[in-house]
Parts: sequence; structure tokens; C-alpha cells
Amino acid sequence: MAIRNKQWRLASRPKGFVEESNFRLVEVEVPALEAGQLLVQIHYLSLDPYMRGRIGEAKSYAPRQPVGEVMLGGTVGEVIDSRNPRFERGDVVVGMGGWQQFHHSDGTGLMKVDARAIPASAYLGPVGMPGVTAWYGLDRIGKPRAGETVVVSAASGAVGSVAGQLAKLAGCRAVGIAGGAAKCDYVVRELGFDACVDYKADRFREALEAATPRGVDVAFENVGGPVLDSTLSRMNPFGRIAVCGLIAGYNGEPVALRNLQAILVSRLTVQGFIISEHLELWPKALGILSALLAQGKLRYRETVAEGIESAPRALVGLFHGENLGKQLVKVA
Amino acid sequence: MAIRNKQWRLASRPKGFVEESNFRLVEVEVPALEAGQLLVQIHYLSLDPYMRGRIGEAKSYAPRQPVGEVMLGGTVGEVIDSRNPRFERGDVVVGMGGWQQFHHSDGTGLMKVDARAIPASAYLGPVGMPGVTAWYGLDRIGKPRAGETVVVSAASGAVGSVAGQLAKLAGCRAVGIAGGAAKCDYVVRELGFDACVDYKADRFREALEAATPRGVDVAFENVGGPVLDSTLSRMNPFGRIAVCGLIAGYNGEPVALRNLQAILVSRLTVQGFIISEHLELWPKALGILSALLAQGKLRYRETVAEGIESAPRALVGLFHGENLGKQLVKVA
Repeated sequence: MAIRNKQWRLASRPKGFVEESNFRLVEVEVPALEAGQLLVQIHYLSLDPYMRGRIGEAKSYAPRQPVGEVMLGGTVGEVIDSRNPRFERGDVVVGMGGWQQFHHSDGTGLMKVDARAIPASAYLGPVGMPGVTAWYGLDRIGKPRAGETVVVSAASGAVGSVAGQLAKLAGCRAVGIAGGAAKCDYVVRELGFDACVDYKADRFREALEAATPRGVDVAFENVGGPVLDSTLSRMNPFGRIAVCGLIAGYNGEPVALRNLQAILVSRLTVQGFIISEHLELWPKALGILSALLAQGKLRYRETVAEGIESAPRALVGLFHGENLGKQLVKVA
Repeated sequence: MAIRNKQWRLASRPKGFVEESNFRLVEVEVPALEAGQLLVQIHYLSLDPYMRGRIGEAKSYAPRQPVGEVMLGGTVGEVIDSRNPRFERGDVVVGMGGWQQFHHSDGTGLMKVDARAIPASAYLGPVGMPGVTAWYGLDRIGKPRAGETVVVSAASGAVGSVAGQLAKLAGCRAVGIAGGAAKCDYVVRELGFDACVDYKADRFREALEAATPRGVDVAFENVGGPVLDSTLSRMNPFGRIAVCGLIAGYNGEPVALRNLQAILVSRLTVQGFIISEHLELWPKALGILSALLAQGKLRYRETVAEGIESAPRALVGLFHGENLGKQLVKVA
């Protein structure tokens, strides 16, 4: 009996904010396996800010998600059938399985992981792409030195939460920026940042100034817009800004900056990066991150939407800051 | 008989654009020389964009110009009296003599130059601070490779004109951005850039696109604002932007950028620099630049205001783009 597979396909490209109507749910039959193929039942789907760039109209760093095809996304799941000699039933695999229940694959890009020591979903978070992104941006661009101040925006998110904890481990003062008191509370009490500033509160700029009495040496930028602008005004000479995300610009609006002068006045280095271009460093980063996680030195939280049907709604929520920590969809 | 010395002192800090009324002309007597001192009759005063930062309210990278004191500025002049063993009458010296006719000095920061092979005023331009600035930003931050496209804003200015010529010498396509047809004409015909785009013209963005058919690998940014924004939209992956000046932000207004996303999408490195922090490279750069000048490979023009009295008016003009090439004041 053929397996039925629910899939979300991209129906249209968003103009501004992503809407649920940009996606269309279909149900198809999973084809029989040919030699070399395997079938993965997806357990978790990862939702990430980069998806906005892939589905939009604008030129981006990666091929655009085609309209009409299964929406891309990182997944972790279990091999339930295999005619590929590299995989067998019961293997837990991480890969780009997409927004669907079953991933029919030839094995390309799939990595077997050990889901006993580390929960499977963590491979989509602190010991997955978001964790490696945090490590690369902080270590390779931010180059923090003990005693320096590191500011991390979207500090409660999958990437920011790791970046700030790594900054603490490097002996820095870690200051988060997050939206709302609950997120800030989590960032300080649970993740151990030294301070967290609520960008939705009145007098955000003054609060950021108070939280960074010795200025800012490294900024890990996930947001852009007014958050970036205020951070620019606090940068110390020769500061480094790792640009990991500019959510504030993802939706097409222009960004007014009052403090662009800081790039010159404080001789800053501002550098954008895309973690998928640094695959050679993934093993090193994953080794560091999984060791920290196993030692209890890396904390994380997940926001889990239930069922593949919930994926578009959860992505919309991600761009409105509704998640705390890593946004996942529990598919099975 | 004591020498009378006309000086311009800073009278007040500008809020927006610099105005002539921010300066006050005084006349003082030159004191007698004590042991170790010398007197320089200033021939040329250099006017430069960095001056806006020094006289403004905002925190900058260098000490602010104090109100009530002689306005700072680079100068070249002749030693007319000396009780300092390092200098003798007739020496031509470059230094920070300020906005005045006579510079009473203990010799600190004065450098003797050879004004026979190279005209004295060139030590304030292509073989002076502006030239070294162009060399550093292009070579050390831009890192151009033959065949790449380099865009230089304020291309007809003292720094931009050198940056573009160095890009050509490095085997690059050099595209200038300048204000008005006359400046663009000069940039292409006289300086030898491959193209120049008039940012004051209609359809500037389309013209920049047409002039950079293979995108932009290196931007030497002297202007900021909409010019920077359009340049951002043309950047190729892994492009470098050397931020030398942000005149568009010098006068306090916020800058709206539509293409900030490019930092991330194109994985750019954007780096600000201040040439006075790289003194160790000045001898190397000046050696390269003076050799090129002597070989006729480095062209330049000067806009010369007559008389020390004209300095404030000429500085105001500089921020309105009235000069072509290096803005000087001929003092004597």
C-alpha cells in the first residue's frame, strides 16, 4: 500500500511579509524505491529566517525556491526504508528534507547523526546550522577577546542564543537584544547573558547604552534596522559587526540609519556571511558545540508547532517574533 | 618689526552644513622665536572633508577642534626663520600649520619635502594625505584584482581621483561617480577612468548599472547616502567596500538605505579607516605615488582659492561639491 505524503509547496512569492497563502498543501503518493534510494520519515522540520530570501523576488545568494515545488527546509528524521547501501532502517538523518512528511531521497546531503547522546531536534538547532552560524560569525568575524563586550540581536533565537553563550565562554560581557520582557528574561536567567535589552520598550537606545557601559566591541547582527542603528552608535574603535541576518530588511522596506557614520568614525569592519559557504569548518564547529552541549554548557529552547499542517503559520510567526528559541515543526 | 599673522579661528560648531559664520578672522603678532622654534610662511592650505568631523558636535575618531583656537589644516610652506637645528631658512615643509599665514612651530610633525621635482602643493594632494588615503583604501581594503570592477565615488576629488587611477594601473575597470557633467568629463578624459556616472542626473541608478555590466567588486566610498545605496545594489559576491568618507552623513541627516541587504546577500566586507592610524605605511605609499607622479602616470587638478581670507568660503563650497580635484587655499 502506497504511503500518502502531505507536502507544502510554494504557491506564490510574498511581496512584503510572508503570508500563509503563499503556500499550498498537497498530498501525493510516495513512489516505490529504486536502487540507491531511501525513504525518511521526517520527525522535525526547521523554520529559519533565510527562507524569506529563498522565496522572495529579490536576487539572493542562493537559488530561489521554485514556485510549485516542495518548500525547502532542514529536517531530521528516521530512515524507514532503504535501497541505499549507506543507510539502513532506523538511522537518524539530518538533511534538507523539505516541508513534507516523507523524504524520498538518493542520499545526497543526508548525514547520519547519533540521537542517543543528543536529542534529534538539537541537530536543527545548537548542534546544527544555527549553532554553526553562531560559532562562525562570532569566532571568525567577531574575534572576541576576553573582557570585550559582545552584543547579540535576536538573542533568544536559535542563532543568537548560541552566539551569546559562546561569547560568555570566551570571557566577554554578553548583552542580548530581544523583543519583549519574556524573551529578555529568558536570555539573562536561562542563557546567562549579562544583560538583555528589550527593543520593543520605550527608551531602547538609552537602555542599550546603560547595558554597554564600556561600548561594544563585537556585534552579532541578526536583525538590522533600528536595532542595528542603535548598536552602531555604541561601537568602539575597531569594532567588528558580523552580519548574519537583516530580518528588518527581509520584507522589502528601506532602512533609515542615523549612525552609519560609525563605520568610518569607529573604523568598523562589517562583514556579511552565509554559513553554507564554509562547509570546511562545520566538523570543527559541530565538535565544539556538541561537546559543550554534552557538558551542559550550552542551553537552548525550542518552540514546536504540531503537525506538518502548521508550517506556514509558524513561519509567519517567526517573522513576527512569536517564537522563543528554535522554531520547529513536529511532523511525526 | 613684528610680523602680523591673519588666522581663522573656530567661532562656533555647525549644526548641519558648515557656514562661513562658524569661523572668525583675527590678526595677531607672531611672537619672537625661542630656542628650538621656527617660523613657516604658509604657501598652501589644504581643505578636506575630514574637517567637518573635527568641528562638529558628534563624537569622532580624533580630538575635536576647540572653539576659539586656530582652525586646523594641512599646509605646505617655507621656513623663513629658524632656531631649530633640524630646519633652516628656505626649507619647504609639510605639516598641520592651520588656517593662518604664518606657522610658529617647534618642528613637531613637520616634514621637509623636495619641491623641485614635485610642485609643493602636490604634497597636500596626490603625494600627500589624500593620495595615501586612496592608496591604503584601495590596496589594503579593496584588494583589487586585475579584471575586477572598481567604483569610486567623489571620483573627481583629491582622494577619488587617485583611487581610480590606481585601480586602472592594477588592471581593473574603473568607474567613477561624480556630480555633474563637467566633473564626469574630467574623470574619463583626463584621469582615464573607463566610465563616470553623474549622480545628479536623472536615472543615476540605471546609468550606474549600465557602467558596471559585470557588477562591482570593489567600492571606494567617499560619499555615502544614495550613492552608497546604489553601489550596494551592484556589488558582486565577496565584494569589498572601503569606507573613506561619508559626506552624505557629515551634516547630521539620517540616511535611508534600500540595499543594506547586500551586505548579507553578497557577503560583503565593509570597512572604515582613518589614514592617520597607518603612519607606518606612509613612506611606502608616498614612494609609490611620487614615482607614479614623476612618470606622468598620476594626474591631478587643483581648485585654488586666493588668500587666507577665502578659506571658510572654500570649505563651504567643498561640502557643496564646488571644487574639482584638490581644494587648496593659496596663502602666499
